[in-house]
Amino acid sequence: MNMRSLSSSSSSSPATVTKLALSIHSSFPTLNLNPIFFYKFKSNKHNKPPFFSIRNCTTSNSISAKPSSQLRKNRSSNSDSDPKLTALRRLFSKPDVSIDAYIIPSQDAHQSEFIAQSYARRKYISAFTGSNGTAVVTNDKAALWTDGRYFLQAEKQLNSNWILMRAGNPGVPTTSEWLNEVLAPGARVGIDPFLFTSDAAEELKHVISKKNHELVYLYNSNLVDEIWKEARPEPPNKPVRVHGLKYAGLDVASKLSSLRSELVQAGSSAIIVTALDEIAWLLNLRGSDIPHSPVVYAYLIVEIDGAKLFIDNSKVTEEVDDHLKKANIEIRPYNSIVSEIENLAARGSSLWLDTSSVNAAIVNAYKAACDRYYQNYESKHKTRSKGFDGSIANSDVPIAVHKSSPVSLAKAIKNETELKGMQECHLRDAAALAQFWDWLEKEITNDRILTEVEVSDKLLEFRSKQAGFLDTSFDTISGSGPNGAIIHYKPEPGSCSTVDANKLFLLDSGAQYVDGTTDITRTVHFGKPTTREKECFTRVLQGHIALDQAVFPEDTPGFVLDAFARSFLWKVGLDYRHGTGHGVGAALNVHEGPQGISYRYGNLTPLVNGMIVSNEPGYYEDHAFGIRIENLLYVRNVETPNRFGGIQYLGFEKLTYVPIQIKLVDVSLLSTTEIDWLNNYHSVVWEKVSPLLDGSARQWLWNNTQPIIRETV
Amino acid sequence: MNMRSLSSSSSSSPATVTKLALSIHSSFPTLNLNPIFFYKFKSNKHNKPPFFSIRNCTTSNSISAKPSSQLRKNRSSNSDSDPKLTALRRLFSKPDVSIDAYIIPSQDAHQSEFIAQSYARRKYISAFTGSNGTAVVTNDKAALWTDGRYFLQAEKQLNSNWILMRAGNPGVPTTSEWLNEVLAPGARVGIDPFLFTSDAAEELKHVISKKNHELVYLYNSNLVDEIWKEARPEPPNKPVRVHGLKYAGLDVASKLSSLRSELVQAGSSAIIVTALDEIAWLLNLRGSDIPHSPVVYAYLIVEIDGAKLFIDNSKVTEEVDDHLKKANIEIRPYNSIVSEIENLAARGSSLWLDTSSVNAAIVNAYKAACDRYYQNYESKHKTRSKGFDGSIANSDVPIAVHKSSPVSLAKAIKNETELKGMQECHLRDAAALAQFWDWLEKEITNDRILTEVEVSDKLLEFRSKQAGFLDTSFDTISGSGPNGAIIHYKPEPGSCSTVDANKLFLLDSGAQYVDGTTDITRTVHFGKPTTREKECFTRVLQGHIALDQAVFPEDTPGFVLDAFARSFLWKVGLDYRHGTGHGVGAALNVHEGPQGISYRYGNLTPLVNGMIVSNEPGYYEDHAFGIRIENLLYVRNVETPNRFGGIQYLGFEKLTYVPIQIKLVDVSLLSTTEIDWLNNYHSVVWEKVSPLLDGSARQWLWNNTQPIIRETV
Repeated sequence: MNMRSLSSSSSSSPATVTKLALSIHSSFPTLNLNPIFFYKFKSNKHNKPPFFSIRNCTTSNSISAKPSSQLRKNRSSNSDSDPKLTALRRLFSKPDVSIDAYIIPSQDAHQSEFIAQSYARRKYISAFTGSNGTAVVTNDKAALWTDGRYFLQAEKQLNSNWILMRAGNPGVPTTSEWLNEVLAPGARVGIDPFLFTSDAAEELKHVISKKNHELVYLYNSNLVDEIWKEARPEPPNKPVRVHGLKYAGLDVASKLSSLRSELVQAGSSAIIVTALDEIAWLLNLRGSDIPHSPVVYAYLIVEIDGAKLFIDNSKVTEEVDDHLKKANIEIRPYNSIVSEIENLAARGSSLWLDTSSVNAAIVNAYKAACDRYYQNYESKHKTRSKGFDGSIANSDVPIAVHKSSPVSLAKAIKNETELKGMQECHLRDAAALAQFWDWLEKEITNDRILTEVEVSDKLLEFRSKQAGFLDTSFDTISGSGPNGAIIHYKPEPGSCSTVDANKLFLLDSGAQYVDGTTDITRTVHFGKPTTREKECFTRVLQGHIALDQAVFPEDTPGFVLDAFARSFLWKVGLDYRHGTGHGVGAALNVHEGPQGISYRYGNLTPLVNGMIVSNEPGYYEDHAFGIRIENLLYVRNVETPNRFGGIQYLGFEKLTYVPIQIKLVDVSLLSTTEIDWLNNYHSVVWEKVSPLLDGSARQWLWNNTQPIIRETV
Repeated sequence: MNMRSLSSSSSSSPATVTKLALSIHSSFPTLNLNPIFFYKFKSNKHNKPPFFSIRNCTTSNSISAKPSSQLRKNRSSNSDSDPKLTALRRLFSKPDVSIDAYIIPSQDAHQSEFIAQSYARRKYISAFTGSNGTAVVTNDKAALWTDGRYFLQAEKQLNSNWILMRAGNPGVPTTSEWLNEVLAPGARVGIDPFLFTSDAAEELKHVISKKNHELVYLYNSNLVDEIWKEARPEPPNKPVRVHGLKYAGLDVASKLSSLRSELVQAGSSAIIVTALDEIAWLLNLRGSDIPHSPVVYAYLIVEIDGAKLFIDNSKVTEEVDDHLKKANIEIRPYNSIVSEIENLAARGSSLWLDTSSVNAAIVNAYKAACDRYYQNYESKHKTRSKGFDGSIANSDVPIAVHKSSPVSLAKAIKNETELKGMQECHLRDAAALAQFWDWLEKEITNDRILTEVEVSDKLLEFRSKQAGFLDTSFDTISGSGPNGAIIHYKPEPGSCSTVDANKLFLLDSGAQYVDGTTDITRTVHFGKPTTREKECFTRVLQGHIALDQAVFPEDTPGFVLDAFARSFLWKVGLDYRHGTGHGVGAALNVHEGPQGISYRYGNLTPLVNGMIVSNEPGYYEDHAFGIRIENLLYVRNVETPNRFGGIQYLGFEKLTYVPIQIKLVDVSLLSTTEIDWLNNYHSVVWEKVSPLLDGSARQWLWNNTQPIIRETV
């Protein structure tokens, strides 16, 4: 995983448990709690919104339903001692700004899960460092919304000028509701339109219009950047590299050709691609602008007869330049995207825009340019033609085509070369993990005191020695004992716990290799686990096996399989508050859509041959321990003895080959089939990974892949 | 079951297999293919429509995508030799009618699954006797829409004046699309507004308005009734009886009191209930107006301080009259419903109307009366008040409250007395079945030639001897060999097959008793089943067991559990094209909502303690055999060792106790847990049912409840 992508609630404390559905529902749409959910809901326009939750969680009763008294306790209403806020507010009254409130979201202009420091405006203005949050500043108030994972952290990091809004708690308004509450009617609410998807901006506009507020797009500058000044980190400009055909499997020309067929079918003559992983995949490029994600900041416009990549020229090496030229792709400055969008409209191009991912600046620029076009057209032709969004009245007239990005699905369905890269890097990753576990076991046997951070650093050391290693694919979750129950735990030096023989240890980590991306969780005990821990571990394992072994008809969305992973926990009244699987990129983002396996049944994207998903059921006992067992799987067509309905049946193949700790298994709970699964898995682990190991790590692998001898029943 | 309620597709022939979702999607909304789906989708306004299907079925290739040539092959365009059609068309030009087309649906005014002959207008006009169909007659055309189950039957029954519209096949238009195609723009399309739900009529109105057609509500008479004249059966007027407190468990006053609380909460002062089972449940009344369903034709209006039952007075016995008076319910003529609705509006009552079940005549009458009220109000008060559907501007002003009927959910959650009645009648039903199977086995051993109908009749004979027996709960599905693969098979004397020792025999049947309703399917073989038959039977059984044993958190909708019942079939590429479970009434309709267990994930109604569902996975091999194993279950709270999230976990208890034929089980496929389930079930069957039996039937039960001796692994 990590779990960041599967859940928006923390199980760290019963008092801060939030209802997953509620926290999403009642949050402002751009408060993008969860990139995977975001993917899910942009994949299918007919999807149900994510407000539906199968299960109730007890909501916090530590927070009053009337939040003002508690939530604003830190607020000293008349003192404004925060120089950043003062500076920001001063900009409100500039003639070309003239606003009464400004919203600062976490996002970059591409809705990336991880972002470059240069774009971390919300973090700069509020001092809150959590990955999710939205800041709203008015002339006399400043408020920050975040979710249950970050309540404690935000309380510590926000100064007294800030009101903490515990999103999802009862009675806590959304950002737009709050604006409607605190602003006098008819106010002007400013945003940087590059940082909001068009859908989110439209929704915001709609809600605040109830109080006659106006949403003001400040195209010319980001107000936080203006006060950040020289201290602001430069936008990243690491060199881009070509993701060779031996990894990509399909050349750019072929990918562009398929895309262009889709453009034609959709009646459009161009598409704007803004998601960074979609651009990287489509152009067989990789970058290092963002931690964990091998992508590069850029926009891409593909037309029927050409394509333009909007990118900082300094990142483009000669190799990349050649590569792009070969595919007939022109390079333009990153910041010229809006003017090119306007040119497209002026040239009468019909543009495919996925308004759930493309930012409001671009969508709005195209719309405005289309309107200008129509006015010219009318005055020239003296006839009324159809406008933006209308049906095609004239093939020369620019029309917005609002559909989900076709690149997202194409990217999710891996070709054989990508799958091969994923398989191979997973074996090298497994070798690094065997070395790591061998090392850790020995250290603990020798009573060495190791912190969660030290352990995590050592893992990175082993991984970085593997061929093709580039980066971690997310911040390692190294959680010992009770910390394992904090789904989004990130150990910090100084405050973190130790890994020892008395506690369960949950380790969720992954790496970026040149040929693929890994993501694996194992839970182990270096001493004697309790009966309780063993029962919980075994039920999680049974769910993991049930999903791994599932066979299902084509056109089955992932959520249909989710209950398989939970049923063994449900039998004894246990469950986990996150989804069971997310998509994974091939040498790309560790979290991608459009597919997923979750109890939230809004994502109707079927699982398709070649897609990759994680299989990561878990169980978390507050203040005690956390368990998660995660492998990556790829979806493959299965040759079933029958094919009822004349359709294809599908199943999963494993990518991850790392032992599962037998010590934690209560074998008496397992069926014969489950024992066979475990023994077979370990036998394949040995077969595939042992050739990459020697010495004590190889011995460790041998010790940990021995079959369970089934006792006679 | 029967399967009528779970599927709209037939597996009788590969050529007529229709895609379930498609057939619903592309049909005119009032072409109510499936009462259970109807229930599902009225239960939650947020539900997705039923267009989403997990799996593809191969659609028929026997029908061209351009259907006109084939579909109209029987049509002799200039001859109109059908006197009924001629008479009907003559009415089109009557001054108070003046229409260009008339739609005749299958429904009665209450959207009942089974209807009285008096209301079978579509059957009368078209001669097509299937349960589902919509007839549309224009001045020069007549067309009938039905679904895949009935294509062959409709071809035989329709004369050459009729065009058969194979609903759901590619290229076949919906009724409204067809009207838009064949009528000159601006036509008048007539309907009997009592026979369409308000939602369906609105949808129809919307679609035909695209061609400027007008939907005309003919309130005053049903045109088919006018030509049917004396031959038309009298509306049913069987006496009503009181469903005693010993069966109902809750008196009418208490039920009305709860309902009134809901009215107040919803801001309404009255509710109109039109579903016959809802009226029967609410008033603790039962009738015999309709085959299989112990209900009575009536409407009910409940106000805060009173209630009125609209019913033919001749059905009301003295006992019922007293019963109603005690609950302060006045009796009004059935046909005075519309004028009373108008009175309600005139008195300023805000009426709760479930537009997905209440007919258009009633909804429209209320709307029109509200409009008149507003006009009066305005001219009196000289102010503009809110209209129909608006927010409450004045508490005296009548407002329509559009919400799902609260009675549907209340009825679905059985009380302890109702459950006791269901348990007890299921044991008597099981005794009758034991006698029946004992008899049938002997007959076949003695080489008696028995038809499917004879077998079905004999079953009725055994059941009718049981205390409290009233009726069958649906037409028995008695399918031998290949007929078992026809999900909606109804054997007919003369044409039906024989039950013998060489074929699988599927028997799906149920009964209405004074204290409850049963529905059970068993599949048996009287000779030597093939390996194939045994494997398929065993996988169906494994799915049945998996669902039976499921434990799940509160707020789980049924579809989450559906895959449990399919997973064993999926493993080998098998599946079944119907849902897995439907709701069942307590001494009421054998099919009821709002809950269900289906792969169609539009029904978000959670399974709640006290609900009843069928558990009936199956497998159907075209032209070979059909397998289905059906028990009724009730949902119950489970005391799990843990309660993660502080919530309730639920499971199922069985109602049905009839042996499952061990001969058909391939024991080698079963897990230890599954063998234990089977042995335990049979042990309880013996314990519960043997006291009701003697003689050879008791011996049969003994023989058929012996445990499987597990072979050593």
